[in-house]
Formats: sequence, C-alpha cells, structure tokens
Amino acid sequence: MNKRISKIKRIMEQECIDHVLITDYYNLKYFINLELDSGERLLALLINKDKENILFINELFSIPSSDDYKIIYYNDTEDCISILSSYLSGKSIYVDGKWTASFLLRLMNRFSANYQDAIFLTTKLRSIKDEQEIKFMIKASLDNDEVMRRIVPFIKIGISEKELYNQLLFEFENLTCEPVSFEPIVAFGKNASNPHHQSNDTILQKGDVCLIDMGCRHQGYCSDMTRTFLQKNEKMEEIYDIVKTANLLAIEAIKPGKKFSQIDKIARDYIISFGYGQYFTHRLGHGIGLEVHEGYDVSSSSEAIIEEGMCFSIEPGIYLPDIGGVRIEDLVLVTEKGGIVLNSFSKEKTFI
Amino acid sequence: MNKRISKIKRIMEQECIDHVLITDYYNLKYFINLELDSGERLLALLINKDKENILFINELFSIPSSDDYKIIYYNDTEDCISILSSYLSGKSIYVDGKWTASFLLRLMNRFSANYQDAIFLTTKLRSIKDEQEIKFMIKASLDNDEVMRRIVPFIKIGISEKELYNQLLFEFENLTCEPVSFEPIVAFGKNASNPHHQSNDTILQKGDVCLIDMGCRHQGYCSDMTRTFLQKNEKMEEIYDIVKTANLLAIEAIKPGKKFSQIDKIARDYIISFGYGQYFTHRLGHGIGLEVHEGYDVSSSSEAIIEEGMCFSIEPGIYLPDIGGVRIEDLVLVTEKGGIVLNSFSKEKTFI
Repeated sequence: MNKRISKIKRIMEQECIDHVLITDYYNLKYFINLELDSGERLLALLINKDKENILFINELFSIPSSDDYKIIYYNDTEDCISILSSYLSGKSIYVDGKWTASFLLRLMNRFSANYQDAIFLTTKLRSIKDEQEIKFMIKASLDNDEVMRRIVPFIKIGISEKELYNQLLFEFENLTCEPVSFEPIVAFGKNASNPHHQSNDTILQKGDVCLIDMGCRHQGYCSDMTRTFLQKNEKMEEIYDIVKTANLLAIEAIKPGKKFSQIDKIARDYIISFGYGQYFTHRLGHGIGLEVHEGYDVSSSSEAIIEEGMCFSIEPGIYLPDIGGVRIEDLVLVTEKGGIVLNSFSKEKTFI
Repeated sequence: MNKRISKIKRIMEQECIDHVLITDYYNLKYFINLELDSGERLLALLINKDKENILFINELFSIPSSDDYKIIYYNDTEDCISILSSYLSGKSIYVDGKWTASFLLRLMNRFSANYQDAIFLTTKLRSIKDEQEIKFMIKASLDNDEVMRRIVPFIKIGISEKELYNQLLFEFENLTCEPVSFEPIVAFGKNASNPHHQSNDTILQKGDVCLIDMGCRHQGYCSDMTRTFLQKNEKMEEIYDIVKTANLLAIEAIKPGKKFSQIDKIARDYIISFGYGQYFTHRLGHGIGLEVHEGYDVSSSSEAIIEEGMCFSIEPGIYLPDIGGVRIEDLVLVTEKGGIVLNSFSKEKTFI
C-alpha cells in the first residue's frame, strides 16, 4: 500500500474512524495519483479502517487496476450512492470537505452514521511536503522569479494593465509548459487598493504603484508571489516600508511548534502600530502545494501548529481605498530551524 | 424583486421551505446576476420565505447594493458560518447541491434543522429557458455550426488529433470572444470508442472515423454538438445508421408531458434491437444552459417531466472497444409541439 494511504489508515486506527471518503480532484491526485475530472459523476475513494479500499467510478472512465484499492464500476442507469452505501458498515464516516452537498445529503438519507469533515486529515497530511514535493515547490518558485525578472522591463508609464497581464502570460508560456497557478493580478495606482483587482484598460501613470501577484506550476505544484513596484509617491513609499518590515518580521518568527495565529499577529500588530490595521483586510497567508490555496490559513483564527515541511505564503498588505495599495508576498518552507523563503526576487524598494 | 427570486419565493411558500441557501457560481449568476468566484471563502445568498434576503460575502469582494438582498460583509478573522447561522430561524433549509460538505457540516453542527438539497428548486427553475436565454442558446449553436463547417476541410489523412484540436480552438477564438463550453473531444479510429477520449498524437489513418464533440458560449450560454465523420468502413457505416436513427427517433418523440426516461428508452431500445445495447454506455443526454451539463438528465432513471422551454442534448452513441465509435449529438429546445434542434450542421453520413 502506498505511504500516503498507510498514513491515513494509521490515523483512522488511532482516532477510531471507520471510513474516509475522498472525492476531491487534488486529494485523489495526492493519495492515489489519479488525475481525473469526472464532472458531475461520482468518483470516490472509500478508505476503510479494517478492510480493502474501494474506488467507485463511472464505467465511462476506465482506469488501470491498483494495489491500493479495488475498483467498483457503476453506470449512468445505476444509483451510485446506493451502491456506495452498501459498502459502509461503521458508525464514523469522514467525508471530503470538498464533496458536494447533493451527494452528502443523499448518503446521509441512506446510511445513518456520524458524519464529519475529513479536512483535518487531508489538510494535515497534504500540508507537510515530502522531499520530492519540496523540489517541485522550489522549481515552481524559481520559474516564478524568472518570469518576474522578464516582466520588469515592460513596466513603463503608458502601458495598460491588460497589456502587462498578457505579456506576463506570454512569458509564463515561454518558460513553463504547465498552466499558471491562478489568474495573475496586475493592478496600477488606486486599483491596487483592491486585493483581488481584475486587470483592465487602466494605463500606468506618473506616481502609480504597480502591484503584480502571480504564480506558475511545476509538476502540478504551485508558486505564488506578489511584488509592488513604486514611483515617487510619499504615501506609497511609507506603507511599502511598513509592509516590508511586517513581511520580514513574520517570516523571522516562523518556527515549528508555534501557532499560525501567532505569526499573523506579529505582522498585524506591526501594521496596527502605524495606524493602518483597518487597511490590512485579509489573513496573512495561506497554505500552498497542489492547490494555490490549501490548508492551513495563516490567520488570527488559525490555531493549527506549524510543523517542519509545511509551506505557506506570508503576504501582508495595506490597501488605502481610492489611493493605492502595497502587498509583498513570499512563499515560506518550514525547516527545523525556521522559515526558508522559496522565491528570491528582491523585495527591496524598486522604482520603475 | 427580480422575477427569478420571486418564483423561488413562491415555491418556498407552497412547499413550506423557510430558507434556501444559494452558493454555486452559476446559480448566483442565474438568480441575482452576480458573477464572482470567491474561491474557498463563503459566498452565499440566503433566500428567506418571510424575510428580506441576505447575501453573505467576504469584505475582500465589494459589490454594488441591490433591491433583491441586504449585504452582510464578514472578514477573514470572523467565523462566517456562525454569522450565517445567526440569521436562520426556520426548520426547513434547502442548501445548494453544489455547496461543499465542509460548510454544510459546520452549519449542521451549529444549527439544527431539516436540511435538504435545493437542487430540485434550482434545476427546475434553470431548466426552463426564457426568451432571452433561448436567443443566447440559439446563437451559441449557430456559432458552433459555423466552427464545425470551418474545421471540416482540415480533417485529412495524416493530421493528428492534437493538430485538429488546436485548429478547432483557433477557429473558436476567431469566431467568438468567449471561452469554449468544454474541452473539445477529437478522437480518431479506435480512440472514438472512448466517449471521453483526450486528444493525443494519434494520426488519422485510412478507414478511421473522426469523432468531434465541441461547444462554445454566447453570453455565457453553452452549445454542445457531436458529429462523427466516416471513411469507407463497413462496421462504422452500419453503426452510424443505427445511431443516427436512434437520434432521430428520440428527437421525434420529445413532447411536453413525457418523462425523460421515456425518451432515453426509445433510443436505447432501438440500439438494443440491433444487439448493440451494451455498447451504448451512457445516458442519452443532459440539460444545458449556463453550464454545459446541468439538470435534467435524459436517462433511464430520470423521472422528471419534459416541459416547454427546456433545452437538452440527445446524444446516442455506440462504442466498440478497440474498434471505434459513433456518437451523434444535437441540442433540442422543447416547444409546445415538440423538439426543435438548435444546431443545423448536417448529420447525413459524411465521408472524409
């Protein structure tokens, strides 16, 4: 049996969990290396504490056999949830947090048990990267650095967000053969005060900041980095220094054994001390790996403990409505001694 | 209040449903014309039988106010489910079928009620297209026809699936400014025996069929059509005739008041009568609109009743493993008198 399945079985044993049902695309990729989008049709891996695991799949999708599970095919005329429930026997069922309410409610109606969210299991296991995953994460960030370097010469007064955005996608396509990890954000001037701005025809003008949030993939693993480029502008330079120090202080504080909420607090308190607390409107960061946002959050309410091998973003920001914003985002890998930043593109104040 | 919300409120009144919770991207677009992907952050429209509706949204996303709902913003440090549950009072809650198990289980723990799948409401309302939606569906199918016409000259011995696939995307980009409605399927020869084949480097050879399943969008509304082109090949010509007649018989039989399962049976029985029943491995069709697959299924287990204004695919197929396959798919709009086929590309036997 593969190591990842073995780990989950060990936890099921310890916690007396009879069944775990994995249905999410990325969880299936992580646990059994299956990359298959079955659309609205049920695709579910039933991991049993004491019995053989079973993969339920529509016969439209044929897949090779595996030592990790038996395959049960169903077809479009059969009730897949009824088939699945006939393989349940225990009282404690943990279902994939991403499963749909439709399937879950049908299963609950058919099989009475204590249903819980399996997210604590899947997040815990996926959050700690193994050696190969770390290599992939490092390479994805190296590529991201390189594209950031290639895009800098294009940041010139007169260019539009959309033009810079398209150039960015072009550079990613040239360098990597995998899709970007998310739609890049390119925001000029006051548009940068919206953390999720969508690039439009806005032209870069004198005094504007240029915020770029971008990421790519290597072997499916994601990178994610934000840099904010400046022009002479007193307010923006002031908040740049604050955001940069908040970023550095938070990264400096990362150690196995601490809580994520403690790291969020360090950056947040620093920003609050300058009176900008209300303008730092989001969590400090998020886990990353096969998905660009995965567990755990780096937020004030995140009580999870930081462990060696975890990888997450640290991205403080200050957003001044109708004026502009600054965000500086790095990915951090946790080692025994503390955090290592995966991306190397400079965060020194850079004027365009 | 907008018409679609009014309709849902009327059904809630009739069926004694206290709350309906809409969270899916396409359902939010349909009911309140909101197009926003909030990622892992809760975005939910609470429709109340007797009270004002409420939209719960993270303050990272700001949206204009509306007469249809009050907006409640929460932030990353707050427990959004706890906020949501404080607005619940009734005993009967219908949740979006696409909602995630994580959110649903958290809400169930916090607020005890009778939870049901809202899919019967959302599917029922979305399945019946209004005048404007029908216009968009017709235009999307017109564009799809045009691209099929443009691609035909490229279907020549020696071309690879991937080349034809890329040409197809190029033609779609040239003609429409919206993304395709799904990744097209281009399958040659025995690859066509897999209904969900992914295009690869396979070269079109003498005797091979060429199956193309493709669709685009107009104003967000989807088209979807499959044609199978032939070369001299007795077996494939034989099954082409059977599949085509099954397609025609099923379309001919569509009338308001019939069950979807009856339509599936007509095509299936015809194929069975030639001994190919086991090779028609999927449902006969699926609803289509804002999503390329939406309710209702046209399948043997679909007991829903066909109504005027519904739109769905009719796509019988015969797939002979390791030999080849034929599928012929049309979109049908239901009128008082019967079905109207939205796409006009010929399904006469066409040799390449």
